Amino acid sequence: MPTAVINYLLGPDLRLMLEEGDADGLKAFCEELHPAALAELLAELEDETVWRVLSHCALPRQVEIFEFLSLHRQVELVEAIGKERLSKLVGEMSSDDRADLLSRLDPVRVESLLPLMAQADRADVRRLLAYPEESAGSIMTTEYASLTEQATVAEALTALRKQAPDAETLYYIYVLGPDRRLDGFVSLRDLVLARPERTVGELMRRDVISARVDDDQEKVAAQVMRYDLLALPVVDEANRLVGIVTHDDAMDVVRQEAEEDVLRMGGVEPLADSYAETGVLELAWKRGKWLMFLSLVALATAQVLQRFEEVSEAHVWLVLFLPLVLAAGGNAGSQSAALIIRAIALGEQGTGPWRLAARELLVGGTLGFLLALIGYLSGYLWFELGSNESLMVAGTVFVVVVIGTVCGSLLPLASKKMGADPALMSTPLITAVMDVTGVILYYGVGIWLLTTLAGTAAR
Amino acid sequence: MPTAVINYLLGPDLRLMLEEGDADGLKAFCEELHPAALAELLAELEDETVWRVLSHCALPRQVEIFEFLSLHRQVELVEAIGKERLSKLVGEMSSDDRADLLSRLDPVRVESLLPLMAQADRADVRRLLAYPEESAGSIMTTEYASLTEQATVAEALTALRKQAPDAETLYYIYVLGPDRRLDGFVSLRDLVLARPERTVGELMRRDVISARVDDDQEKVAAQVMRYDLLALPVVDEANRLVGIVTHDDAMDVVRQEAEEDVLRMGGVEPLADSYAETGVLELAWKRGKWLMFLSLVALATAQVLQRFEEVSEAHVWLVLFLPLVLAAGGNAGSQSAALIIRAIALGEQGTGPWRLAARELLVGGTLGFLLALIGYLSGYLWFELGSNESLMVAGTVFVVVVIGTVCGSLLPLASKKMGADPALMSTPLITAVMDVTGVILYYGVGIWLLTTLAGTAAR
Repeated sequence: MPTAVINYLLGPDLRLMLEEGDADGLKAFCEELHPAALAELLAELEDETVWRVLSHCALPRQVEIFEFLSLHRQVELVEAIGKERLSKLVGEMSSDDRADLLSRLDPVRVESLLPLMAQADRADVRRLLAYPEESAGSIMTTEYASLTEQATVAEALTALRKQAPDAETLYYIYVLGPDRRLDGFVSLRDLVLARPERTVGELMRRDVISARVDDDQEKVAAQVMRYDLLALPVVDEANRLVGIVTHDDAMDVVRQEAEEDVLRMGGVEPLADSYAETGVLELAWKRGKWLMFLSLVALATAQVLQRFEEVSEAHVWLVLFLPLVLAAGGNAGSQSAALIIRAIALGEQGTGPWRLAARELLVGGTLGFLLALIGYLSGYLWFELGSNESLMVAGTVFVVVVIGTVCGSLLPLASKKMGADPALMSTPLITAVMDVTGVILYYGVGIWLLTTLAGTAAR
Repeated sequence: MPTAVINYLLGPDLRLMLEEGDADGLKAFCEELHPAALAELLAELEDETVWRVLSHCALPRQVEIFEFLSLHRQVELVEAIGKERLSKLVGEMSSDDRADLLSRLDPVRVESLLPLMAQADRADVRRLLAYPEESAGSIMTTEYASLTEQATVAEALTALRKQAPDAETLYYIYVLGPDRRLDGFVSLRDLVLARPERTVGELMRRDVISARVDDDQEKVAAQVMRYDLLALPVVDEANRLVGIVTHDDAMDVVRQEAEEDVLRMGGVEPLADSYAETGVLELAWKRGKWLMFLSLVALATAQVLQRFEEVSEAHVWLVLFLPLVLAAGGNAGSQSAALIIRAIALGEQGTGPWRLAARELLVGGTLGFLLALIGYLSGYLWFELGSNESLMVAGTVFVVVVIGTVCGSLLPLASKKMGADPALMSTPLITAVMDVTGVILYYGVGIWLLTTLAGTAAR
């Protein structure tokens, strides 16, 4: 059933049960509904009410539901409860979700919380919080199932029964040598299908694909996707297994990185929370930064235009095609940027910068010719300019489209080379650069050529 | 190991083995390397060479490697081989990958191929090809594992051993009633952990989340993501199980939809293949369509400007701030569009159009004020305009930003309402609309106010 329908149908039921204090009803509600669906119902209730509903079920279930809430909402809820309750909740959470939540809380509060947690959990939290943001270490969980090579299938299945409550997935089981060295993995499928007396060593695959703990999360997600994995093991510099990244966390990374690309293409600093959860002032700031920068670029363009004051006065018609010149360069550039940004995000091979620039030059030339033709025909036929003037407009459009295309494709590559997000060199920035370039070409070079040619013709 | 490194290290080995005709080496190569890694190595070789390499391993392995190639490359390769060989390959492919490939081939060839396939495969292909593009039916596989409620755990595990070779995943097993009605599911994890004498009926979860065969693929992927599923069952109108969508296929949809959003935001028609696989002419066309449309809008702006010829001549300084006015409206609009497009793609709740417009109005007002201030100060101090003129520029910027923000947020919603992709109302289109609006406000309303006020003041 779609969630919107669930909320529409169940929201009123929930409210009624709360009003009537129907403990049995609430208990059944918490235990029977899918935790993700319940989390969506709860997201819109007040903090106190959420805790009242959750108190009707056992702690593991409470945590399961809680983990499906957005991080933003989790932080809000956690701020409303005391240290003891929080430590119990956090002790039960899965290792990666717990690290995410704690990284968002006031460090002073986290420090006061740690002594209340079990020794092993405490060490786990400290280790996970130490990994840099957006690294494999920051998205992995330390709760994985493992076996040794010597175990038989029957022994392995018994061992897995013990590990089951704590493991995030039982479907890939990692085979460890001395000192937790990652030697390979078996799938639960292979174990179940094998005869009980065979050993893990006979079944295991040794060509295990792994990530390093300091790898970028985008690279990790790309690997999970490329090899269609359920989980990817994460190792340290000595090839010791330190955690796993599961397919659902990899999917979240893909989604998050895509969201960042779309926002950066639109000239918005990526948001930490969802759009609905972000306050008006924060939104205004994340947009305002870029808008102010772009306004300054527009003012630089104005400055350039001012230098061509005499040209403006002598050729008032120039203003007519200014929007076309500005739009052509900016739009062609954004198109190239969008294509390259996605190609980089998808980890496409075989797009070296020179081959790429050559290709974009070809596309840019074709597009430039097309738009120049439109410029020439409209100038000559529609706006009744002279033939030379129309040719000047067409020439400017051609050059601007070609420059825009090449810049738009190379800027994201340059950005990546410098270690920044390729999408940082986004549409608005390219548009801005092309605005200044366009004005100089149009009012400067174009008019100079026009008058020089006219002078030559008159002579 | 990163794939780039694999290719760098193994590419020369492969070439050497091919030159020396080292059959044993090639066989080991095909069987030991991960099929995804091998597929990436093969992607860059010639069709004939790829078939030569593949012929060194058994058909199931050949197919496994083949399925990791891009669809574009699969089509190219398949065009180089005869009907008999193709029918064997296709017969061994997984049901969803096979349907994807056949949907890209010449229908005449597909028809000639069907008689060579097994009856069951033939029916499967016909059914899958009949589902509309981008529907749950078009991305699902019909190869799932199923059980009945009455089976004991021991019987279930025996049954799964039989189904294993044909099932895409054994981790979720669907429990079917009479007439393949979907009653629930058990996970392999639960089966393995349960005592052998218990029945599937006791273990199964009945609150199974499913999709309808005609649901949009984006919705299906969102459900897989929301509930952290390994697979989502797909049912027909009578709740009969017809297929499953696995997590990796859902991830591909998320990636594909994100790519479409980024490209549309950049004003490019989404590509069918990867950037590197798309020809120059196709690229030029997918970009040219939008660029030509946007050029016409720029020419409409020119037409509007022409109507204000007298104003242009009387107030030549106006041109200086034209880039600012155009950029402010367009950029503010793109920002809103990017935010809303992502919010829609992520299925965010609680963003009704009115609440959203109110919120954007607030953000737009704040941003408008900020940019208007920059406009006023720079006009007055930097470009030495009069106070009234600076105020007019500031006022225009304010209004343009507010209109841009509200339009940018409502256009994607309107687009969605009309059943189109929200990203269709993308950055370039909003920029174009705001160009015309900006010029009218600046040259029309602004100057009219300025002269009226000056007239009143003079009186």
